Amino acid sequence: MDFSIAPRLQELIGKFRAFVSAQVIPLEKQMSAGWPVLEPLLREARAQAQREGLWGPQLPRDLGGLGLPLEEFALVSEELGRSPLGHYAVNSQAPDSGNMELLREFGSEAQKERWLKPLTEGRIRSCFSMTEPDRPGSNPTWMSTRAVLSDGQWVIDGDKWFTSSADGARFAVVMAVTEPEAAPHLRASMIIVPLDTPGFTLVRNIPVMGHAGGGWASHAEVRYAGCRVPEENLLGGRGFGFALAQERLGPGRIHHCMRWIGICERAFELMCRRAASREISPGKPLATRQTVQEWIAESRAEIDAARLMVLHAAWKMERVGQRAARVEISTIKFVVAGVLQRVLDRAIQVHGALGVTDDTPLAFWYREERAARIYDGPDEVHKQVVARRVLRGFGVDLK
Amino acid sequence: MDFSIAPRLQELIGKFRAFVSAQVIPLEKQMSAGWPVLEPLLREARAQAQREGLWGPQLPRDLGGLGLPLEEFALVSEELGRSPLGHYAVNSQAPDSGNMELLREFGSEAQKERWLKPLTEGRIRSCFSMTEPDRPGSNPTWMSTRAVLSDGQWVIDGDKWFTSSADGARFAVVMAVTEPEAAPHLRASMIIVPLDTPGFTLVRNIPVMGHAGGGWASHAEVRYAGCRVPEENLLGGRGFGFALAQERLGPGRIHHCMRWIGICERAFELMCRRAASREISPGKPLATRQTVQEWIAESRAEIDAARLMVLHAAWKMERVGQRAARVEISTIKFVVAGVLQRVLDRAIQVHGALGVTDDTPLAFWYREERAARIYDGPDEVHKQVVARRVLRGFGVDLK
Amino acid sequence: MDFSIAPRLQELIGKFRAFVSAQVIPLEKQMSAGWPVLEPLLREARAQAQREGLWGPQLPRDLGGLGLPLEEFALVSEELGRSPLGHYAVNSQAPDSGNMELLREFGSEAQKERWLKPLTEGRIRSCFSMTEPDRPGSNPTWMSTRAVLSDGQWVIDGDKWFTSSADGARFAVVMAVTEPEAAPHLRASMIIVPLDTPGFTLVRNIPVMGHAGGGWASHAEVRYAGCRVPEENLLGGRGFGFALAQERLGPGRIHHCMRWIGICERAFELMCRRAASREISPGKPLATRQTVQEWIAESRAEIDAARLMVLHAAWKMERVGQRAARVEISTIKFVVAGVLQRVLDRAIQVHGALGVTDDTPLAFWYREERAARIYDGPDEVHKQVVARRVLRGFGVDLK
Amino acid sequence: MDFSIAPRLQELIGKFRAFVSAQVIPLEKQMSAGWPVLEPLLREARAQAQREGLWGPQLPRDLGGLGLPLEEFALVSEELGRSPLGHYAVNSQAPDSGNMELLREFGSEAQKERWLKPLTEGRIRSCFSMTEPDRPGSNPTWMSTRAVLSDGQWVIDGDKWFTSSADGARFAVVMAVTEPEAAPHLRASMIIVPLDTPGFTLVRNIPVMGHAGGGWASHAEVRYAGCRVPEENLLGGRGFGFALAQERLGPGRIHHCMRWIGICERAFELMCRRAASREISPGKPLATRQTVQEWIAESRAEIDAARLMVLHAAWKMERVGQRAARVEISTIKFVVAGVLQRVLDRAIQVHGALGVTDDTPLAFWYREERAARIYDGPDEVHKQVVARRVLRGFGVDLK
Repeated sequence: MDFSIAPRLQELIGKFRAFVSAQVIPLEKQMSAGWPVLEPLLREARAQAQREGLWGPQLPRDLGGLGLPLEEFALVSEELGRSPLGHYAVNSQAPDSGNMELLREFGSEAQKERWLKPLTEGRIRSCFSMTEPDRPGSNPTWMSTRAVLSDGQWVIDGDKWFTSSADGARFAVVMAVTEPEAAPHLRASMIIVPLDTPGFTLVRNIPVMGHAGGGWASHAEVRYAGCRVPEENLLGGRGFGFALAQERLGPGRIHHCMRWIGICERAFELMCRRAASREISPGKPLATRQTVQEWIAESRAEIDAARLMVLHAAWKMERVGQRAARVEISTIKFVVAGVLQRVLDRAIQVHGALGVTDDTPLAFWYREERAARIYDGPDEVHKQVVARRVLRGFGVDLK
Repeated sequence: MDFSIAPRLQELIGKFRAFVSAQVIPLEKQMSAGWPVLEPLLREARAQAQREGLWGPQLPRDLGGLGLPLEEFALVSEELGRSPLGHYAVNSQAPDSGNMELLREFGSEAQKERWLKPLTEGRIRSCFSMTEPDRPGSNPTWMSTRAVLSDGQWVIDGDKWFTSSADGARFAVVMAVTEPEAAPHLRASMIIVPLDTPGFTLVRNIPVMGHAGGGWASHAEVRYAGCRVPEENLLGGRGFGFALAQERLGPGRIHHCMRWIGICERAFELMCRRAASREISPGKPLATRQTVQEWIAESRAEIDAARLMVLHAAWKMERVGQRAARVEISTIKFVVAGVLQRVLDRAIQVHGALGVTDDTPLAFWYREERAARIYDGPDEVHKQVVARRVLRGFGVDLK
Repeated sequence: MDFSIAPRLQELIGKFRAFVSAQVIPLEKQMSAGWPVLEPLLREARAQAQREGLWGPQLPRDLGGLGLPLEEFALVSEELGRSPLGHYAVNSQAPDSGNMELLREFGSEAQKERWLKPLTEGRIRSCFSMTEPDRPGSNPTWMSTRAVLSDGQWVIDGDKWFTSSADGARFAVVMAVTEPEAAPHLRASMIIVPLDTPGFTLVRNIPVMGHAGGGWASHAEVRYAGCRVPEENLLGGRGFGFALAQERLGPGRIHHCMRWIGICERAFELMCRRAASREISPGKPLATRQTVQEWIAESRAEIDAARLMVLHAAWKMERVGQRAARVEISTIKFVVAGVLQRVLDRAIQVHGALGVTDDTPLAFWYREERAARIYDGPDEVHKQVVARRVLRGFGVDLK
Repeated sequence: MDFSIAPRLQELIGKFRAFVSAQVIPLEKQMSAGWPVLEPLLREARAQAQREGLWGPQLPRDLGGLGLPLEEFALVSEELGRSPLGHYAVNSQAPDSGNMELLREFGSEAQKERWLKPLTEGRIRSCFSMTEPDRPGSNPTWMSTRAVLSDGQWVIDGDKWFTSSADGARFAVVMAVTEPEAAPHLRASMIIVPLDTPGFTLVRNIPVMGHAGGGWASHAEVRYAGCRVPEENLLGGRGFGFALAQERLGPGRIHHCMRWIGICERAFELMCRRAASREISPGKPLATRQTVQEWIAESRAEIDAARLMVLHAAWKMERVGQRAARVEISTIKFVVAGVLQRVLDRAIQVHGALGVTDDTPLAFWYREERAARIYDGPDEVHKQVVARRVLRGFGVDLK
């Protein structure tokens, strides 16, 4: 094995780090002011990213990006993750990055021209509409939204929620059952729905952990009621919805996990800085407490282990494909989400009362990232996936 | 030992439970609307509490309360804790309840007339001003706020934060060093400062976990700059600040811990109800998952253990006094704060995406009660207190 | 609630404590010498217990015991648990105590005369033969041992293991299926089998955690091959095996749990003494380390919580019966077994290299009591029992 | 990064795996028979290893070994670790491997000829005598054993314990203070003491977790009382004892950690096999339980993370040296020791009663490897080392 990072990549990582520190972190204090205040500031940061040649690190070069392979983008994603606004500032933010990937791989030329191009240029935003309030995330094939082909149009009916960033988005990629008689994994299709389509309603931005948010920073409940779009808005083939979602999943998992590791590193630094500077009695810093030292050591160990696991998963995925790396892709989900929560918790505790205030980003991440253990499949489901794969090697086939 | 609860007390507990369910829980959905909306609704609930004979359960009868002994009030406090608004609705809320206790035990007749009476009647609110931003809560005797006697007036200078509920309060009980040359535990005194005193500034309601809040539901940063109050505003004797704070601490600990247990029970019910009703596939509830069952069993065990410990601590405190029950008073702090966090975390996980929304009170408590492991002395400090007491019995005296 | 302990009981507890310290703990160093060396020493200790009026605290007075109710015996059991030999020294040891209870409640006069009397006098030993190597403890009704009535005799065939203390025992109480066509819980019966019955074989004392042991301190694998005993050796009615086992379970759980708490208290003392006396640098005891202090505080809290839970369960069981206290009886199993393991682990860690040697009893308990989380139903099964009972209150009936 | 393993190395690993399965694991059932029975069997296995070209994988080629670099030996060590006897069978066992390294790097030609040669050939055994019963392992420079140069001889006096494998060893490498006036880290030297030297006594093989053991498989308490050896038995320079011990530490840490990972993998397989084969009701394997699935998934994740961390530490150590890799060397100690204990614990629980018997190797490892969290510096000390290094980067120098 060779754990070294090429000098060229190290240099690029350094540029992203500098960009995040100089252009993005200073905007964080405006986060509580809301999206209308934040969006123009981020637009400037995005322009700066373009000037510095940092735009779209995950995008291929012919789409104006840096064309980094997954395992290299992973390390960039960590740097971007150091701020809640990092990915947005270079057009690598969810859910757009996943939609761009879908369109790039499975979109028709017309779809690419109409939707992918402005996305890659950062001129529009999009959303991904899969989760339903009445259906568990642990059983994604059990879905009630329906799309029926009628007169050359898809007629879509159904309720979705956690359609993140729908507020202000130009279009949604909607998962809907189009083949109700097929096998469970072949029932759904992905359909592109412009959000000005009659029958689409943004019911509300869901209040999450105290805030409904707005714009990109929101999670919508939406309704499709007799929503009609042209037949050619189908993305990929009929019944291929889950297959496509799986494709979208692997790289998305790497993005998320490395973003979480970026959060961990920032929290770790804040924790260490606080331990070093806060005095518990005159001249005696908090860092002298053994318990604080243990939190630092355990956090250092957990973050380093998490990063190695994610990089290994990315490396394996690129070599043998997502299917063969399924255990790793599920493993990093629950491992890194757990590390994230523990590191944030320790960092807050080291900050004492300051830790629960919004004077540091820790409280934001503590509440916002509680969802990390839930979305993209709750950790418990991923543990089952891993166990079932492992047990097949011992002659047990559980479903 | 006799673990039975007297029928008379059971009946009273039932009344409080019914009151919270009928009058208080329905107001929760207005919590996000802010204090100006909430306050008049709570005023009505308070009037109802008075009509039902549920006012001031912790207050002595001659002050218009129910005169419950600590170990009985504990069980009432659990019922009130089922809603974030429960204690307020019957005038048992922090920080007023602690201030009423201080005034009742140590206040002069004039102080009682002027401050205690309207507090017990719920006509005014108060705050307690001890924590300082530049001084660690783990070392309470290290304090920078000063009060100097000059021309029959205390002149107070200093910065405080987490002076909870200062916004709209009539007065503060301020801890300030008055005897800088005395031994550390004899340096500070408590002084009553009306908040319209010149020199007092409410700098800001600190944004905590995403919200600055307002009114009773806020945590202020305040400044005392040459703030002058009459000499007779001293509460208790000079240099008795910490001794009084200790007195306030024991019963307050019981209140808090039982409030937390009330939260746990409500979260437990929500968790069980969700497990029972949420289907993971048609006809199969989430409750069939073994992991969910383990969370339920572990939560049940932890909550029951916590309650027994708190009731035992209250019982012991009433029999042998706070000093002899010091180990128990510190133990329940870190035990119950830990149970609270774990139960809330499990309840959220069982709710999935719904758990992070504000559609249940879980997300509110998850972020709001993260502070439970920090305030009133961080858990780590209480563990040290316990260990040091224990180790004395083995011949080691650590400070 | 009243957490006080009657002075009379306190005095009795003190006597048991003194007896264990003076007569039993000194014998521990002979434990590695084996049962033939240990047994005569214990015989002397037993004689001393009889002289001091400490014999059979759990036995009724008419059987020569002290007649303590369950909740009082619980506290005595804790004292006895401070040594691995404590219960044996006063004839309260498993599995004999459980068998005495069965015989006392369900035995015929002849059975009592022949088996119960010498047991209560400590002249013979017995064993309980239920667990089977090929059947999981989590599903006790699934059993392969059969007993068929033929010519006025039960003919028993089957393999059992963890028939503890069979080595040297006079008889076994065997669980065998006698009604194979009945409902699962009504299939088995209990039958008394003298161990000199032809067809009975003690296959081996199972090597457990490095030792096969011997005599009372052993766990046998046994075989019943065409083993014939008179019809009247049936204990209780036909098909009542599980009902009787349930009866035996509740008090046995209290005994075990309080014995574990006794172990915890001894380990706790050893930990504190070591922390107080071991120097990590000249003049600086290990007790100054914050991590050691946290282990002490957490252990103190966990042990105290565990004791309250067990005493409450005993109290409830005596008032409302085992069935109504089912949740509590299952809860204390997994709670106390967990506390036991954590406290022992911490105590060993504080002892460093000494902790893994046999120079303290910690290493013995560490390996011997790993089984606590397995026997009497693995912890995971008890958590399911608790969850299922709780969930019934929410309208879900899981099996 | 490149996580691939060269085909040549994969092939070699396969050979070791096959050797351990065929030649070593079958000997395990003789482990309880004691060293005199085991030693001749192992001698045969060693001969077979030599025939198969598997002798001394960590030894340089000119000493008859395979000359593997550390990061390659690491993966071999994992395979050997699958059996408690694996390393011994190829002459890679502690403490000899460490002593061989010391002699190779720091020994004189005469020392190499006399001690290193027969060690590499497996003709003699050795021990390392550092730990003292009255001195904490957390403070290794605080040592009471003294060596004084007198008439061209070192006269050694002191008590040591956990001088592992002293029983039957030809010589010890003894750490003794030779420069009492020097700075703490420069006080001790290493001296070779043949064990037939007058004044050396093997006081006892310490009973550890129930067994005193014997031969290589033992931990001795020893005494040096006026023990005289020639001046030239000094290993390395005067006062260089700790410097040499540090050199010995890094590679030894890799060996140990990968051995632990080998144990984990074997335990993991046993756990999965048991889960797959044990029925909890007819036709329904234990593997269907969600809790068992979670243990499998968590174990898989933890073992994989641990391996990546150790391989990374080995890689770094070889590139930048032990000093620069100090954080990693300490981190893997506490991380892998923790994983080891958790995986063994889960594997035992899945085995139920079988898990505490000696019918699988799990119970052996459970008790024997409890020491992993203690020896080579308790985990708590390594956490402090990590934290202190980290905190230096934040301007705090603790000690």
